[in-house]
Amino acid sequence: MTPANFSFKEYQPLTLDTAVQLVKHLGYFAEDVPLKVSEIGDGNLNLVFRIVHPESKQSIIVKQALPYAKVVGESWPLTLDRAYFESTFLRKAAEYVPDLVPKVYHFDRLLAITVMEDLSSHQILRQAMIDGNFYPKLAEHIGKFVAQIAFHTSDFYLHPFEKKQLVKDFINPELCKITEDLVFTDPFFDHETNEFPKEILDTVKELWEDNELKREVAILKFQFLTQAEALLHGDLHSGSIFVTSESTKVIDPEFAYYGPIGFDLGQFFANLILNYLSHEAHSTDEQSRERYRTFLVESIEQTWLHFTNEFTTLWHSKGTEIFTKVPGTLETFLAKVWKDTVGFAGCEVIRRTIGLARVADLETIQDEALQHQLKRTALRIGKDLIKTRSQIKHVNDLIRSFAQPQ
Amino acid sequence: MTPANFSFKEYQPLTLDTAVQLVKHLGYFAEDVPLKVSEIGDGNLNLVFRIVHPESKQSIIVKQALPYAKVVGESWPLTLDRAYFESTFLRKAAEYVPDLVPKVYHFDRLLAITVMEDLSSHQILRQAMIDGNFYPKLAEHIGKFVAQIAFHTSDFYLHPFEKKQLVKDFINPELCKITEDLVFTDPFFDHETNEFPKEILDTVKELWEDNELKREVAILKFQFLTQAEALLHGDLHSGSIFVTSESTKVIDPEFAYYGPIGFDLGQFFANLILNYLSHEAHSTDEQSRERYRTFLVESIEQTWLHFTNEFTTLWHSKGTEIFTKVPGTLETFLAKVWKDTVGFAGCEVIRRTIGLARVADLETIQDEALQHQLKRTALRIGKDLIKTRSQIKHVNDLIRSFAQPQ
Repeated sequence: MTPANFSFKEYQPLTLDTAVQLVKHLGYFAEDVPLKVSEIGDGNLNLVFRIVHPESKQSIIVKQALPYAKVVGESWPLTLDRAYFESTFLRKAAEYVPDLVPKVYHFDRLLAITVMEDLSSHQILRQAMIDGNFYPKLAEHIGKFVAQIAFHTSDFYLHPFEKKQLVKDFINPELCKITEDLVFTDPFFDHETNEFPKEILDTVKELWEDNELKREVAILKFQFLTQAEALLHGDLHSGSIFVTSESTKVIDPEFAYYGPIGFDLGQFFANLILNYLSHEAHSTDEQSRERYRTFLVESIEQTWLHFTNEFTTLWHSKGTEIFTKVPGTLETFLAKVWKDTVGFAGCEVIRRTIGLARVADLETIQDEALQHQLKRTALRIGKDLIKTRSQIKHVNDLIRSFAQPQ
Repeated sequence: MTPANFSFKEYQPLTLDTAVQLVKHLGYFAEDVPLKVSEIGDGNLNLVFRIVHPESKQSIIVKQALPYAKVVGESWPLTLDRAYFESTFLRKAAEYVPDLVPKVYHFDRLLAITVMEDLSSHQILRQAMIDGNFYPKLAEHIGKFVAQIAFHTSDFYLHPFEKKQLVKDFINPELCKITEDLVFTDPFFDHETNEFPKEILDTVKELWEDNELKREVAILKFQFLTQAEALLHGDLHSGSIFVTSESTKVIDPEFAYYGPIGFDLGQFFANLILNYLSHEAHSTDEQSRERYRTFLVESIEQTWLHFTNEFTTLWHSKGTEIFTKVPGTLETFLAKVWKDTVGFAGCEVIRRTIGLARVADLETIQDEALQHQLKRTALRIGKDLIKTRSQIKHVNDLIRSFAQPQ
């Protein structure tokens, strides 16, 4: 194949060579420049090619969805449509928070290929938090990210026709099903996808037998299934966030769909809570542990504060829905978002502890007794958040539910 | 045009002649039989042709949507898609409650034409209730209608892929906008679409100035906009129900969309409540008034009872969602539907009293003082239902909110 004729008539996975041909064909590099290419994806879900022009240091990412997912050693078919949802979300997000998402240069639906900005200067937040690094802008950025996208895709702002068209465009059954199963279902039943140390089976069994808890999870799952409030990222954990000390980039929005606004915030908070717990092991001394936990607690507080401030400003300055002018309506709505956030955080804490997709924060703890103890604690916290979310009125109440008095 | 060549290349309104040609062309009658045809629609939204073979008494309805609506003397464009939603809903409903909807024989999307069963043997429930007629099966039929369709189109029953496809198919922006405006917005603000006797302006102004009320309406409107629980009829008032003493047929589902299940029940109950009030004028003596009001009260009680019984049976026998097996989940969900029902009933009572589309039950009352008094009462009831719906735990509490002690 010559670059000038680059074309595939049907889906096929790129190779190192065809990836390079593609970006040259698209005009991002001249035909005759030498490029370095490497595949940097984990190979489970997507191919990710990083293509660099060594001389100018210019670089670009070519991401291609694979038609299957490798999970628990098996391969199951997975829709290529997720590349569509990812690129469509990123372009929508760029209308409101262009600095907080990678730039999308090109999308090809047939090949499930997105050509986008290279963020290799950034680090994945999860590992960065395990390492105890500080990100003073993180809370502001995530609060702003959620508020801007949620408000601008909600009925408070959009014309109802435009909003309903977006709802339709973002109906995302296959990826939502993964969340419905892995976040809201399997961890609460004795299901084969769960995985946890046999030593904590008693605590897990208690959870499975807690019908009050399961009724509340049923409500939250039903909210996830039915409440099309705003466009969500849908998978906003610390593995979907790229950071430097100054910059935050939210990536991998292939789970994007219209859902309850609290879901994104809940997932984010849950992953900070899990990291908080894990610093029992990861911090090398008491003082650094305290300092890091203070950063995490403040990040939760400040994220909620920035979210509400940003949402409030938009509500008053750009709200088109007439009820945005009625005093108290905003507060009522934010209280609903908060309550949902707490409940969804609880589900995420639990599924990240005993479900299929667990987190390195806990999994990498070598001291088994400590790991088991922290997992028990995580389950207790998750249960509390879900069952008592009506009483957790304020972000300080949330913090009290997991933070140890200092 | 000869019948054998019946075809239009683009939308055009039928005439008496082409309506007859159409049904012959479709084979419902032989080419050579003499047919009687009359246009029986109100001409505002749709053409409705009734075509009868006088000899055999066989008859059929041809309904065609017009591309505009005549309201308040003006004509505004209205999507022909509503014929699609109507016929698609009726066919879906026929899978579960074939006896409670008119049979659809044929649908043509280009022409916005539905050929369907003739229900001329039936009467519109609204006028029938104004006349004080009794329908002992009404509650059972409506309870069953809502329960069967809601359950079978919900996440409790359908595979999530199938449910999301149906949500997509029933995104109905134009018709929903009418409800969003006329039910949930205009009546609560000094809007030009409202209409009421100047004598009750003080009561109406109180309503417009009641920010607590408006905050609650905002919640209900937002639920209507966002909560895709199940396929709804979307306009289930007593003008959308055809009755005989034995039979109930729900018609005109052009507002069909995925929404909160309580909306259909709330609209139905509200129209029974308005009829209850109106019998202050329509009943000729105290005894018949008491008797009729007892029928209305029992119809509300029994509709809720039949709805919950039917829904409960389906939940236990056909629920596929695993949380349907968790004790108490059904009760939690039904409590949510009930609370929504009460709130939506309140909105409907108010909009049918002072909004654009008011009801003959009240409008036909000649005694102006009595009419005004009843409208004030209706507004008070509507407000109470919306504001205190959390305290209205049981159908008896609902009845106490409007029924006079006997």
